[in-house]
Amino acid sequence: MGGKSKFELKTPKGTKDWDGKDMVIRDKIFSTITQVFKRHGGVTIDTPVFELKEILAGKYGEDSKLIYDLADQGGEICSLRYDLTVPFARFLAMNKDITNIKRYHIAKVYRRDQPAMTKGRMREFYQCDFDIAGVYDPMLPDAEVLRIICEVFEGLGWDKAYTIKLNHRKILDGIFQVCGVPEDKIRTISSAVDKLDKLPWADVRKEMTEEKGLDGDIADRIGEWVVHKGKHELLDKLRNDPKLSANASMQAGIADLSLLFQYLEAFDVLDRVSFDLGLARGLDYYTGLIYEVVTEGSAPEATPGAAAAVAAPAPKRRGKGGEDDDRSNDPTVGVGSVAAGGRYDNLVGMFSGKSQIPCVGISFGVDRIFSITKARMAADKSATQVRNNEVDVYVMAFGGKGFVNERLSVCAKLWEGGIKAEFLYKVKPKVPQQFKAAEANGVPFAIFLGDDEVAQGNVKIKEMGLRDGHPEKEGVLVSLDNMVGEVRARLERKKELERIVQQAEGLRVVDGIKTEDVATTEDAAAAGAPSTTQ
Amino acid sequence: MGGKSKFELKTPKGTKDWDGKDMVIRDKIFSTITQVFKRHGGVTIDTPVFELKEILAGKYGEDSKLIYDLADQGGEICSLRYDLTVPFARFLAMNKDITNIKRYHIAKVYRRDQPAMTKGRMREFYQCDFDIAGVYDPMLPDAEVLRIICEVFEGLGWDKAYTIKLNHRKILDGIFQVCGVPEDKIRTISSAVDKLDKLPWADVRKEMTEEKGLDGDIADRIGEWVVHKGKHELLDKLRNDPKLSANASMQAGIADLSLLFQYLEAFDVLDRVSFDLGLARGLDYYTGLIYEVVTEGSAPEATPGAAAAVAAPAPKRRGKGGEDDDRSNDPTVGVGSVAAGGRYDNLVGMFSGKSQIPCVGISFGVDRIFSITKARMAADKSATQVRNNEVDVYVMAFGGKGFVNERLSVCAKLWEGGIKAEFLYKVKPKVPQQFKAAEANGVPFAIFLGDDEVAQGNVKIKEMGLRDGHPEKEGVLVSLDNMVGEVRARLERKKELERIVQQAEGLRVVDGIKTEDVATTEDAAAAGAPSTTQ
Repeated sequence: MGGKSKFELKTPKGTKDWDGKDMVIRDKIFSTITQVFKRHGGVTIDTPVFELKEILAGKYGEDSKLIYDLADQGGEICSLRYDLTVPFARFLAMNKDITNIKRYHIAKVYRRDQPAMTKGRMREFYQCDFDIAGVYDPMLPDAEVLRIICEVFEGLGWDKAYTIKLNHRKILDGIFQVCGVPEDKIRTISSAVDKLDKLPWADVRKEMTEEKGLDGDIADRIGEWVVHKGKHELLDKLRNDPKLSANASMQAGIADLSLLFQYLEAFDVLDRVSFDLGLARGLDYYTGLIYEVVTEGSAPEATPGAAAAVAAPAPKRRGKGGEDDDRSNDPTVGVGSVAAGGRYDNLVGMFSGKSQIPCVGISFGVDRIFSITKARMAADKSATQVRNNEVDVYVMAFGGKGFVNERLSVCAKLWEGGIKAEFLYKVKPKVPQQFKAAEANGVPFAIFLGDDEVAQGNVKIKEMGLRDGHPEKEGVLVSLDNMVGEVRARLERKKELERIVQQAEGLRVVDGIKTEDVATTEDAAAAGAPSTTQ
Repeated sequence: MGGKSKFELKTPKGTKDWDGKDMVIRDKIFSTITQVFKRHGGVTIDTPVFELKEILAGKYGEDSKLIYDLADQGGEICSLRYDLTVPFARFLAMNKDITNIKRYHIAKVYRRDQPAMTKGRMREFYQCDFDIAGVYDPMLPDAEVLRIICEVFEGLGWDKAYTIKLNHRKILDGIFQVCGVPEDKIRTISSAVDKLDKLPWADVRKEMTEEKGLDGDIADRIGEWVVHKGKHELLDKLRNDPKLSANASMQAGIADLSLLFQYLEAFDVLDRVSFDLGLARGLDYYTGLIYEVVTEGSAPEATPGAAAAVAAPAPKRRGKGGEDDDRSNDPTVGVGSVAAGGRYDNLVGMFSGKSQIPCVGISFGVDRIFSITKARMAADKSATQVRNNEVDVYVMAFGGKGFVNERLSVCAKLWEGGIKAEFLYKVKPKVPQQFKAAEANGVPFAIFLGDDEVAQGNVKIKEMGLRDGHPEKEGVLVSLDNMVGEVRARLERKKELERIVQQAEGLRVVDGIKTEDVATTEDAAAAGAPSTTQ
């Protein structure tokens, strides 16, 4: 068993443990997202955390240097996955019988970011991906992915305080071609445009001309276009330009977006998108529609040009608020986009050679979504406490005997009835210790076992934190046989009261994060909610 | 974007993708286990998939050679986690403010098993761990962990067709001491005993004497004890042996087990355990109670001695069966134990030096549990089909117009109402294609949009697979405004009918795996379940 360790006790650089309330909040975010994915017929797959190194090679451009390799311990050379998209494409290429699928995958990915590049970015982090693979009529799956994005953020209680910026690779290519960018410079000029959300145009222009050797006139012509954003009217602007509208790539892109806007209208989410010619996206494998989601304050603290690109299109608020509206007070400014994706029709073919499966998808950046959600909860003074666990009942002994066997037997009955219950691991626990343990976790109910109760085959059920004068303030005596039913009835009643309170407050919160707030429940009862005691 | 790949398209050795029905079944197993963990107040933590190499060093004895290392790409040297216990101990040592916790963790672990050793064992596999850390009165947390094991397997529908074999390190040590094993040979002789479930005593004795240099007489004395199993009566047998009962370690072990049996009785699970002196467990870090779970047929196809150790203690069956009772037909013979654990009071101290936190826990081997569950489902002819996804409604167009915008708008309304819905990504889909897509996933309801329906603001709701003569066989016309409510009512009714059918059949299955079985639902209705159509 060896001696004591002398090294520093820590997790590896760029990784962290998740526990306590952070873990609870993150789990709720996962469950909200999963619920949306399933509502759209998504099925999940699970791929290994590492892949053959060759699978990842040549997929990430200059970011390939960030890939983690496993040591060569004999046998195959492997690397930790860098994202969930390439493993998905590898999976499709390997399973020839799967020609279409709506798959979601929530899992960790790994990027060996250099210290100078980290900016708080983790080396191990979660992605939540949803992708639709298959040969279909144009833009129908693309439109559903955008609808899914909206359902996720509404499900998280973000209302309309986010914008989906979208563009089309074929439209960008059309602009580059018409402006005179040589074919071999198109991808690298596109990468420069992608920096428009972080840098002013002057810097981007400088990169194009000085670093990438583009003619200044060409850069200026590009600069006239990439500042535009809008919707139908911007499509019309492109259509009405004689040179652009003559370009084949542009025509294909315009046809796609025109159809997309029609479908988004039918899906009732057209107001959530902004067609933004300055959006380019870094990854090479996109072939059509591209998009990323920014929220109020999620973009970097930026230059004027960038800030304009971030403004939400007149966000209309539903409900009665409950969230912090004030951008200047938002503690999450600068976390970047919270989700991004696009269409990639050629990636599967890179593995399978002959068979090609077109795909479109979205990846949610859960860590950023988590930071924003947590900051908003902290700023929301009306928000109730997040509980560490979900225990319903704490089983306590009164008097000096401890009643250890009786407590165990009561717990067994409660568990058998599906009720979450705990007790103190002491043979003769003190009463204050038991109360402290129950209160520390915000457990809503206690069951008392004293001399009289045990002698008569009863228990006392008490709701924690009831006010003076409440008929159940001192607890209610019930027989052991009725215990499970009585506890269940009180739990349901309590949940119902909380729902009423939340509705009354017009709160929109992540489902289930708001839980026990004893005083609030009491207020609801006092405020005229149907009296349920007795 | 490079050319085509030339390497073999595969996942790394010892890893696999999970998808389709396997993934659905595994998810249900996770959710059953999680539900039990939460019922006992468990909270979850998430640790990085890799740890500093030094953290894992010196924890796994000779199995350390199976640890996966990350390549040295500059910076810290890391390894993939080998289990979830050592990262948990590291977490506790790092977070001094956490002095007690019931934590669960469901995650992948990594073991670079050599080809000759694999025997179908994966290099990447899931563990589901539950551990209770904290200074408490003896055996109370230990008893709750055993109760949790029982709830998990009952939750999985295994009834009592499993046995928890348990032993105590201090009792083993007492036997070894009294038999005359030199102190420095105790752990290595213990490892030999651990092989009793795979090898006959003669082979184990040979390992003790020939490989490990133990005196033959001593080995024979050990051999007389380690074949015993029982419960109270075996404790008495140990108590009544004058030499053993004089041994301090033995006395401590007997006191623990005596208390444990009392608590297990109160928890109503004493009949599920077998005190087995032949159980030793390989890992060095256990300090007290140890246990592993075997199920009918889960132990290796073994020698007579081993087979006896596996027999369940007169398993009484609840319900009316539904599972394959015949061991000889069990397709899962030989998968080994399905869960294992014990008390480890010194592991946290290996990291933190000064502060020690006693722990006890259990690790469920999900892959083995999955194999057995799947095999049982396949053998159960009354089991219904496992669905790939959970879609409630398929939205279809009738006639030549396709009604693409209308279908999208109907889907948006359904999703808004929390109903899981799909449609075919075609502008003008053919009717048979739409039916085929719905039937392939066993979608229970369809919504039809034809000329008449669209003109009048209606849709037709149809339950799939209804028999001739059923009043809703041809579908029911409802207005768009009532659609969500009508669909919801039918889904609830269908679920209720299925519940009745399952109760009637006395089936105990993994919650939720049994889903749509149209004929069965109809049978239930025909058999007198309250008529709910209209």
